[in-house]
Amino acid sequence: METDPFSETPNENVDYVIQFKFAGPGIDKNVAEDQLSKLLRALDSVGLRTEIRDNDDTSLFVFVRVKSHRGFVAEVYRSRIKDWLHGIRPAAPEKETQKSLEKEPVTEAERLRLVYHLITLPVGQGGAGITPKIGEYTLVEQIFALHDRKFNSQWLKTWSTTWKVSPEELTNLRDRFGERVAFYFAFLQTYLVFLAFPCIAGTSAALLLPAYSKFFAVVNILWAVVFLEYWKRKEVDLAVAWGVRGCSKLNNIRAAFKFERIDTDPVTGEKVKYFPEWKRLLRQGLIVPFALAASGTLCGFIACVFAIEVFISEVYNGPFKSALVFLPTVLLSGINPILLGFFTTVAKRLTDYENHAIDEAYEAAFTRKIFVLNFITSYTPLFLTSFVYVPFAKVIVPHLDILGLTAQELTDEKQTHTHSFEINPNRLKKQVIYFTVTAQVVNFGLEIVLPYVKRRVFKKVEEFKDSAPSSPALAGSEAEKKFLERVRDESKLEVYDVTSDLREMVMQFGYLTLFSIIWPFTSVSFIVNNWLELRADAIKICVEMQRPVPLRADSIGPWLDSLQFLAWLGSATTSALIYLFADDANFGPGGSPKPLTIAGVMTAIVLSEHIFFAARMLVGIGFDAVESVGLLKERRERFLVRKRYLEESMGIEADEIDTDVITLGDSIKDVGGRGGFWRAGNVAETYGIGADIIRGKLEKKEQ
Amino acid sequence: METDPFSETPNENVDYVIQFKFAGPGIDKNVAEDQLSKLLRALDSVGLRTEIRDNDDTSLFVFVRVKSHRGFVAEVYRSRIKDWLHGIRPAAPEKETQKSLEKEPVTEAERLRLVYHLITLPVGQGGAGITPKIGEYTLVEQIFALHDRKFNSQWLKTWSTTWKVSPEELTNLRDRFGERVAFYFAFLQTYLVFLAFPCIAGTSAALLLPAYSKFFAVVNILWAVVFLEYWKRKEVDLAVAWGVRGCSKLNNIRAAFKFERIDTDPVTGEKVKYFPEWKRLLRQGLIVPFALAASGTLCGFIACVFAIEVFISEVYNGPFKSALVFLPTVLLSGINPILLGFFTTVAKRLTDYENHAIDEAYEAAFTRKIFVLNFITSYTPLFLTSFVYVPFAKVIVPHLDILGLTAQELTDEKQTHTHSFEINPNRLKKQVIYFTVTAQVVNFGLEIVLPYVKRRVFKKVEEFKDSAPSSPALAGSEAEKKFLERVRDESKLEVYDVTSDLREMVMQFGYLTLFSIIWPFTSVSFIVNNWLELRADAIKICVEMQRPVPLRADSIGPWLDSLQFLAWLGSATTSALIYLFADDANFGPGGSPKPLTIAGVMTAIVLSEHIFFAARMLVGIGFDAVESVGLLKERRERFLVRKRYLEESMGIEADEIDTDVITLGDSIKDVGGRGGFWRAGNVAETYGIGADIIRGKLEKKEQ
Repeated sequence: METDPFSETPNENVDYVIQFKFAGPGIDKNVAEDQLSKLLRALDSVGLRTEIRDNDDTSLFVFVRVKSHRGFVAEVYRSRIKDWLHGIRPAAPEKETQKSLEKEPVTEAERLRLVYHLITLPVGQGGAGITPKIGEYTLVEQIFALHDRKFNSQWLKTWSTTWKVSPEELTNLRDRFGERVAFYFAFLQTYLVFLAFPCIAGTSAALLLPAYSKFFAVVNILWAVVFLEYWKRKEVDLAVAWGVRGCSKLNNIRAAFKFERIDTDPVTGEKVKYFPEWKRLLRQGLIVPFALAASGTLCGFIACVFAIEVFISEVYNGPFKSALVFLPTVLLSGINPILLGFFTTVAKRLTDYENHAIDEAYEAAFTRKIFVLNFITSYTPLFLTSFVYVPFAKVIVPHLDILGLTAQELTDEKQTHTHSFEINPNRLKKQVIYFTVTAQVVNFGLEIVLPYVKRRVFKKVEEFKDSAPSSPALAGSEAEKKFLERVRDESKLEVYDVTSDLREMVMQFGYLTLFSIIWPFTSVSFIVNNWLELRADAIKICVEMQRPVPLRADSIGPWLDSLQFLAWLGSATTSALIYLFADDANFGPGGSPKPLTIAGVMTAIVLSEHIFFAARMLVGIGFDAVESVGLLKERRERFLVRKRYLEESMGIEADEIDTDVITLGDSIKDVGGRGGFWRAGNVAETYGIGADIIRGKLEKKEQ
Repeated sequence: METDPFSETPNENVDYVIQFKFAGPGIDKNVAEDQLSKLLRALDSVGLRTEIRDNDDTSLFVFVRVKSHRGFVAEVYRSRIKDWLHGIRPAAPEKETQKSLEKEPVTEAERLRLVYHLITLPVGQGGAGITPKIGEYTLVEQIFALHDRKFNSQWLKTWSTTWKVSPEELTNLRDRFGERVAFYFAFLQTYLVFLAFPCIAGTSAALLLPAYSKFFAVVNILWAVVFLEYWKRKEVDLAVAWGVRGCSKLNNIRAAFKFERIDTDPVTGEKVKYFPEWKRLLRQGLIVPFALAASGTLCGFIACVFAIEVFISEVYNGPFKSALVFLPTVLLSGINPILLGFFTTVAKRLTDYENHAIDEAYEAAFTRKIFVLNFITSYTPLFLTSFVYVPFAKVIVPHLDILGLTAQELTDEKQTHTHSFEINPNRLKKQVIYFTVTAQVVNFGLEIVLPYVKRRVFKKVEEFKDSAPSSPALAGSEAEKKFLERVRDESKLEVYDVTSDLREMVMQFGYLTLFSIIWPFTSVSFIVNNWLELRADAIKICVEMQRPVPLRADSIGPWLDSLQFLAWLGSATTSALIYLFADDANFGPGGSPKPLTIAGVMTAIVLSEHIFFAARMLVGIGFDAVESVGLLKERRERFLVRKRYLEESMGIEADEIDTDVITLGDSIKDVGGRGGFWRAGNVAETYGIGADIIRGKLEKKEQ
């Protein structure tokens, strides 16, 4: 039976579980045994203690924990020193390890991170070099941490009972799941709060202002600008508060990085894996054909579906129309994900091929591609409607009569294709509503409900094949059985990927900046969705996913650029939309809009773009005027460090110096001397001379 | 008689000369004497030795030098520690002062900088707080260093005899005049070298390609992009090589800064002068009306002159025409400088009023205003011709007949104003040539020749009033008399302002990016001019100006933004110009260009702009692929520092720690224990269990 996710079984002090596969196609018993012993020794060598239990017929679990208290403390201290030396922490940790640990106790996230590094880092860099499937440990299936159910249940309780997630909550989260996850929730929370504004603006615009009101558009874009500028600074604050600022520069070498030759680093003089940058650049060139192919296919497909839809809903009215109208939606929601999935894998392959040496670089490169793909699939339909269908429908639709003829054959009604075409007034708005409400709801279901069902089903399947009787050595207590049961469950869960959640939010933000002018209520739908999302994601992490390895991050990473891009594009499209539809606002985008002159659109775009950048600059200046809390904190800490050193150095009086050997330029030579030009021995004498001159001159004058 | 600027009189070990005014309107004798003694005591208190000589009837010279060798050495050491703590130098100076000074001997620039700080820094910050005319030392006229004629003559010799200024030369320069000046020459040299490319491109374009060739335009803009991206990185390299990277963040408090109240710094806890940021922002708001007024006036004036010119040269042909044609030029070159000068002073006032606390901020704010003013005065005429005159002349010029009528009265020829108007084919090109060749030559004369003449004249005037007989106390050697003579000369020289030289180059770069499409030879004229300029500026510094105080800088500062702006604008205007004139290239911009459709221009601009930014991004990425020398050097140094520390910290084994007091999360508790879940005592045992499981399962399978 399934264990209640919120029951309070302890984790038996296990830090990580390594799933080791010993049987299966092409796995030799001896190889398995060798690798296992190698694995255990490797773990032992970096000060980790191991314990083994069985899982199923093909794999077993290696439980890992820290072996020696002292060793680990030193580990912590070293990592903090390292952070300091890389400028991540402004001040060095206390010289006495003990004091420093009392001052800053080790959070669970920090502990898990360090242990994870002990397991995964290359042997050279103080790790055991164990990376699932990559490298020498081909039989290592996965490495995962175990959920702290007690904390999880508390977490979910508090969040489900409070309206707003407090900063303390976030810090709390960061202490358990690391900065990377915490940053996502921080962003989501900030975004949620900020949404309140466009909600009010949108609602009042919808009620009071004409559709496509310039005023609302300006407010909306300005809001986006302010939000992003604010978040940029908020990020810094959080990074400083969490002591991770600049950690993204720490450059963790990717395990999957294939080097061309071993080379000596010009800086460190150490032997390092080398792969020529120019080659990488060349490989990155492949982005161009990829982008063309992907966007071509996706846009093409969407356009076709679009055409079919228009035809069926507005030209065709033969039999089965009532049924056929659903065809496009079916096609879209059926095939689109497949295409997207396909191209995503290609993108991944491409990024692998680019062979980045550093995790951050890899992720950035991949994220960019993902963004483009999602951008196309999410927004193309709306772009088509607003910039192709509405302006040009009258021109295009008739050509759909090729289809119209076939339609005619199916029916007797002669007027089918003489049937005069009319642009559907509310299509655009309808679409926006579909994408911003329906899609959100569906997606929500897919994210929360579906996996739950899936798990239940799998569980049932599992229960058919009775689990193997554990060998005598493993006969443990009831609690242990329960624990192992739980471990097996968690081993089957998916790995949580914060990127996908971030992507979701970014795309949502896009709808807001690009199209909310069409339907001002957009933000209302989003604020509801996100309030739920925030909680749903918490549940997802606790129940549906393995416990994420607490990695560090000092921002939401490359997604910030995507957000900025969307805000900018929003300024352009919004103005274009207004230019197109504003005048006949009363009967919506439907009625024939004024003839689209390129001049108009271009001017609109040029204007809004430049205004946008100006606005962004100004807002930025405004924010900078008030120094952020984080930067202030940082400056203070850095200052204190400086002060300490300066005071030390002030002590230095130059008595111990043999002055002759030092070259300070001529002016310092023969300082003591009174000969030649420098006659005055002291201030008094100098002043005397001065006074004489003054008197002399003045008397001369008076004569 | 005038002393030969290159004679090798030594500076009597004087570091700085302070000119002190004791007589004049509203100066009381006693006040003067008090201030003088105060001054001398202040200097003495910061370890500076003084000597006094007379200058003229109203002022005397206070000569300043370092008093104690030891004290100064400590000063140097402290300042270097400070640099390290602020991250300007990666590594701390050697603990033993002596060693550190042997390793990095004090350059003349460093010495003069430190002495200057000793004189000028506020009393709180280890200086004597002496700032000319500001604060308590109202009678201090100026503080200036003395030229090292020996070095100067060598400098000019080498530069006038070599084609290219070598990096060593620049470093040499930096050691004498400080980074600020050195950066200007470094920029000029880099720019000069880069100019070779557009020279070739331009010449071949002029000879082979049709006028307004798109190809040349792209090449030209691309060149600008590459140049700027290169320079950005070059700047960093130089800053690192000269050990000043990040020194612009050191934030020197302005002497003229007026504080509202004394406040405690949230960071340092020290009492600091406080002026609310919001107030400053409000005051900065004044930029708007100022910009409007200035641009309005300047543009208006230029437009009028322009109209007059067009009228005289192309409509009017009454009497005196031959003379009248010069009127516009006279007006322009007569009144424009006055207007510009006026607005520049206003801009200065405004910036003063903005009351920036930090030198850098003040300079940035002022530079921005200056740039706008110069932008208008330099480019408006050409913009008028290309975007108003040529496209709309046919429409506008007839209105000039109001003048035409008056003209008619002066003459009998009836056809004067029936005289049909024709657009002057070569006006645009002529103008560009005027601004890029004639103007450069004139300006060159103004910069080099005029001041020389001026000085000669003043010199003569001086010689009429025989200098006062020096009082007995001062009867010095011949050499001394000669020396004082020289000091008096130098005291009369102007203060060298690197900004104005930079501005000149920036505006020149503007002509290149904005208009060289009209006359591809532009860059040829510039390369010649700049080759001379580079040397002329050297002469200027050596002969026409006082020795600049060697200030530090880690870039050419705010001018970089101006350059980027010009490159960007260039991409827009060039495409617009091409759109306007390309087709009828054969008979130049003159013949009636195709009717200007806004759509076309807008499209051209949108396209080129976006292409421009894309190109800039790509070029940037390309450059980043190859790591810059400077950054490499810096990384190496930082690495070495880290290594040292890490090795120290590695020593820490955690034996001295009382493990019980430290909280490392539960998993660390009862590490030794073998009870409960953790039964295996060592790797062997663990492995044993694992092996059993594997065998067990596999046997089960085989059955």
